[in-house]
Amino acid sequence: MIFHEQDDPLNGETMIEIAIATGIISILASLFLAWHVNRQPKGSPKMNEIADAIRTGAYAFLKRQYTTIAAIALVVAALLYYVFGWHTGVSFVLGVIASLIAGFIGMDVATRANIRTANAARKGLNKSLRISFLGGMAMGLAVMGLSLLGISLLYIWFGDPKLIVGFGFGASFAALFAQLGGGIYTKGADVGADLVGKVEKNIPEDDPRNPAVIADLVGDNVGDEAGRGADLFESITAENIGAMILGLAFFPQFGINGVLFPLLARSAGIYATIVGIFFVNVKENEDPMKAMRTGLAVTTIVAAVAFYFLVTNMLTFNLYYSALAGLVAALLIGYITEYYTSRGYRPVESIAKSSETGPATNIITGISVGMESAVLPIIVISVAILVAYITGGLYGTAVATMGMLATTGFVLAMDGFGPITDNAGGIAEMSNLEKATRKRTDILDSTGNTTKALTKGYAMGVAALSAFLLFSAYFEVANLAVIDVAKPSVFVGAFLGALLPFAFSSLAIRAVGNTAFEMVKEVRRQFRTIPGLMQGKTKPDYAKCVDISVRSSLKEMVLPSLLVVAAPVAVGMLLKAEAAGAFLIGATISGVLLAMMMNNGGGAWDNAKKTFEIAGKKGSEAHKAAVVGDTVGDPLKDTAGPSLHVLVKLLNTLSLIFIPLFL
Amino acid sequence: MIFHEQDDPLNGETMIEIAIATGIISILASLFLAWHVNRQPKGSPKMNEIADAIRTGAYAFLKRQYTTIAAIALVVAALLYYVFGWHTGVSFVLGVIASLIAGFIGMDVATRANIRTANAARKGLNKSLRISFLGGMAMGLAVMGLSLLGISLLYIWFGDPKLIVGFGFGASFAALFAQLGGGIYTKGADVGADLVGKVEKNIPEDDPRNPAVIADLVGDNVGDEAGRGADLFESITAENIGAMILGLAFFPQFGINGVLFPLLARSAGIYATIVGIFFVNVKENEDPMKAMRTGLAVTTIVAAVAFYFLVTNMLTFNLYYSALAGLVAALLIGYITEYYTSRGYRPVESIAKSSETGPATNIITGISVGMESAVLPIIVISVAILVAYITGGLYGTAVATMGMLATTGFVLAMDGFGPITDNAGGIAEMSNLEKATRKRTDILDSTGNTTKALTKGYAMGVAALSAFLLFSAYFEVANLAVIDVAKPSVFVGAFLGALLPFAFSSLAIRAVGNTAFEMVKEVRRQFRTIPGLMQGKTKPDYAKCVDISVRSSLKEMVLPSLLVVAAPVAVGMLLKAEAAGAFLIGATISGVLLAMMMNNGGGAWDNAKKTFEIAGKKGSEAHKAAVVGDTVGDPLKDTAGPSLHVLVKLLNTLSLIFIPLFL
Repeated sequence: MIFHEQDDPLNGETMIEIAIATGIISILASLFLAWHVNRQPKGSPKMNEIADAIRTGAYAFLKRQYTTIAAIALVVAALLYYVFGWHTGVSFVLGVIASLIAGFIGMDVATRANIRTANAARKGLNKSLRISFLGGMAMGLAVMGLSLLGISLLYIWFGDPKLIVGFGFGASFAALFAQLGGGIYTKGADVGADLVGKVEKNIPEDDPRNPAVIADLVGDNVGDEAGRGADLFESITAENIGAMILGLAFFPQFGINGVLFPLLARSAGIYATIVGIFFVNVKENEDPMKAMRTGLAVTTIVAAVAFYFLVTNMLTFNLYYSALAGLVAALLIGYITEYYTSRGYRPVESIAKSSETGPATNIITGISVGMESAVLPIIVISVAILVAYITGGLYGTAVATMGMLATTGFVLAMDGFGPITDNAGGIAEMSNLEKATRKRTDILDSTGNTTKALTKGYAMGVAALSAFLLFSAYFEVANLAVIDVAKPSVFVGAFLGALLPFAFSSLAIRAVGNTAFEMVKEVRRQFRTIPGLMQGKTKPDYAKCVDISVRSSLKEMVLPSLLVVAAPVAVGMLLKAEAAGAFLIGATISGVLLAMMMNNGGGAWDNAKKTFEIAGKKGSEAHKAAVVGDTVGDPLKDTAGPSLHVLVKLLNTLSLIFIPLFL
Repeated sequence: MIFHEQDDPLNGETMIEIAIATGIISILASLFLAWHVNRQPKGSPKMNEIADAIRTGAYAFLKRQYTTIAAIALVVAALLYYVFGWHTGVSFVLGVIASLIAGFIGMDVATRANIRTANAARKGLNKSLRISFLGGMAMGLAVMGLSLLGISLLYIWFGDPKLIVGFGFGASFAALFAQLGGGIYTKGADVGADLVGKVEKNIPEDDPRNPAVIADLVGDNVGDEAGRGADLFESITAENIGAMILGLAFFPQFGINGVLFPLLARSAGIYATIVGIFFVNVKENEDPMKAMRTGLAVTTIVAAVAFYFLVTNMLTFNLYYSALAGLVAALLIGYITEYYTSRGYRPVESIAKSSETGPATNIITGISVGMESAVLPIIVISVAILVAYITGGLYGTAVATMGMLATTGFVLAMDGFGPITDNAGGIAEMSNLEKATRKRTDILDSTGNTTKALTKGYAMGVAALSAFLLFSAYFEVANLAVIDVAKPSVFVGAFLGALLPFAFSSLAIRAVGNTAFEMVKEVRRQFRTIPGLMQGKTKPDYAKCVDISVRSSLKEMVLPSLLVVAAPVAVGMLLKAEAAGAFLIGATISGVLLAMMMNNGGGAWDNAKKTFEIAGKKGSEAHKAAVVGDTVGDPLKDTAGPSLHVLVKLLNTLSLIFIPLFL
């Protein structure tokens, strides 16, 4: 099914050459940004000392985490090779490697950009914003480029998108460990640091006296940065391969164009993202969120124009409506997420108000807000799927997903920006920078919280929309005519599938609890046994806390990850392909809903707490209640929720590969 | 399709006569128990004063609630009559009336049994246990009898189980309002009373100085008693009708026996329950839970023997395995629920342990436990469905559901026992009864908490197992060959269906928050403005608090209830029958999972708090953290969770009726 056998060879070859060239350009642009960020001045020795501690901690974790992932991945690769042949084994290994590289680049740039952002904040807001944003963009472009290049090259090599599903599975597999392990690390450290520091000792966040503060700052890098990088790497990879497989089914209608459209759509997205970079600028007293919105709007418009030419030339005009449905859905979900997680709107304000009657009502309201927040995004996704299908048929749903993913590069940059500014704020706080500087890093940090929430909403929207696409690919590969839920085995499959995200989330949340518990014990021990620590006369043992996070998170990430891999295989082998398809649907639907509830609920709790801090009511009873809500939200929004994105897509790629065993 | 046209008339007629007779016997037994309870002595004037206040408050609520339900039901009945004909309209109205009567009987007996239980506790544990248990049993037998009698008579009248679906829908409709309105009432009052009483003023639960204490005690009756009565009335009614419809499809195989088996299975359950009553006795220093377990075991064994004769005579022997699968599943789910919600096992102990690091970790662990608690019950249900299907085919799954429902009468009695003992404890506390008496009511109250948790687990297990049955009935009536989730409209239907329980729970939880907020303001006002209240010199204005709960809960119950009715109709009319079927599955699966998470999580939080109280650590920081968890769990386990049981079954009966509009 390689292009030059079926179609005008020049046309097909040119298209794939464009994709490869774009992939390389994207990676080069990423490296250029990394170099550019690295050239910026690094600030005082005190700042460097802290930044070095973060960097060392992050590398220590990544090294041990990557070793663990590599070991498990090798076993899985051997199994895949043995059962499904070399194509799958090789592409799986390449997928794992590409995902780990993407995560590594993200983390490396982030641990360089954090101190430079803090230092630039001494000069002005815009300079500081640019460094942190470009640091995030370096990850975004690396992720986009590696995915596009990997898929294009494997497609040339193997000649059939079905054979490169292993690449997507490898990416998902690595992403699950990266996101889950990183998520447990970051929130175990964060919750542990807060419980003793903020609650018991009444010292501020990021206070250098807190022994867990470095572990917390490391966590931002390994969880939010490397983890999310791997997560979105996997998203675009899996969706690309799924759309190409669906393109195969439409070969009679669109020829090779249907298979290659996803690659060119992704290329268009990369160029649109690069254009968008130039529009992210902020004046000294402006809200940086405005700059982000402008950049995203430009990227969206450029992508919309590029899609017009791509769709009308490669496919048929009516599919452009499908693409627009995807683009518009992405924007709407962004707005909805902002509504549910930002200050100034009803949801967050209602949580803040309910904090006045204590932590219990704060939590009750937050749970209610989280559940409600799933409603509008799901309706938007549903309408998008129906519009795409009505205007463009089944392939239209694939085009809509491509439309939604068009801005992924920019969204990734906004996401990567978050942990960098979070770190910058921590470094500024710990090295006692001037008040004006800390105000600037605070503003950027707060913007980062918003962008992190937005990108999680986006990632979940993508997961929901693309679930249908991947599911169609499963149908195509499994050669299923229908999935009949009236069969007991199929009904049971759907039920067990819907159960998986609950079981997984339970384990992930408990893992954070366990890690935090270890951390609390250690932090309390240090405060108790190190003389002069509370008075700031002696330094705590930061490394000990980092080590606890590393050990605990690596230990805790294994069981839930294996569950996610073992459960669908067991269901598929026992109850067969139709039940496995139902399992997939059940898991996708409940995973998406739970993730939205946890991500948005957590984001809303976080900003409800900020409401009191900004109003100068820090330390009041209501603020204390809001801190409880924020702490509860942490493992939901930064560990379980984002890991569910990965879970949903991992199940899809995994099922695509394992179909032969389910028949 | 009435029996005497198709089959041996005598046989069919005899069977239905047995069912009618059993229904009447059950109702008479219920009235006898009510009379017996009413004959017991009522205790001191002080106790009577409190009990009268509770009774008056409960009647005030029920009167206004029933008026609201009647008004909305009349509109719906008129619509049903107009669109679907008189059978549906009439059976709907009868279903509503029967459900309301069942709820009324339950509440009436409960508000008589509470004071008599408290009074009997002065003499001994067994006497007190007998009164509260028989009070619960009065409700159980009334519910069972009314359902069986209603269905049997309507079946004789209409001659086709499909035409009496309206009876099930009416029961579901009334149950939704009863459970939701009652749930909002009871938890709004409970949370409001606790927030000011326990947390701010540091006075014990049920302290007569707390203005919301009567509202809280009223809540036990209108929420836990009348609400749950309506809930389980609806369960057995919907399942009976669903199984009869499925029996129609198996007419060629089993003749009229397949249609009438559910009625006789229910009759057997009633007799087994009556036998079980005699085995509930406790020695003075024994755990009352042991008596409950003995009674339930006897009921299960009698039902198993009766099922053997029914199945082998009416159907074929292999279906007995299906019945046993249901009976065993019911027992296992009971044990699992106990494991997750009782002291002494890992889940509750882990929540208690995590309370030591504050409310945030308490909540995090509780959420994790709640999510995990869904795993084993779903696996049990899945295995039961598969075993039933493999041994008995599709009709086997109906027989399994009948097996699981065989002990419903006894379970209902255990459930109704809970609020009676809760009230008895409150009356004992408020009227300053002797310490030995209060110790006895405390023991019974604690047993009641366990039985309430168990019966919720049971109710949810029934909902999960019967979902498949009702879904099969939907297939049968809609004449669908398959539900193909690869169609976009069907996929969207499943997604929207899964969303509904989230949207509904969000509204239900928020309603409790709103009601509690009103209550807190009023209680604070009374403490502030009534002189001498805190010193116990003056009495609070109980009636004002009762009134707030009444008004707020009636107002708040309307929107979520209408959403539940409107959403599936809208999806069915827009996206048609196949998508409506997917909507049904999506809602069932996510509803069952969410409900298990909320019910068990809430139960576990409750008992984690009790751990500290029993260990004499009341007032410690860890206990305060555990109180937060308990308060968070309240609206989850007593409002949203139980209402989801009703929601799941309401959707099924509603869809069965509305099918003509979806084609």
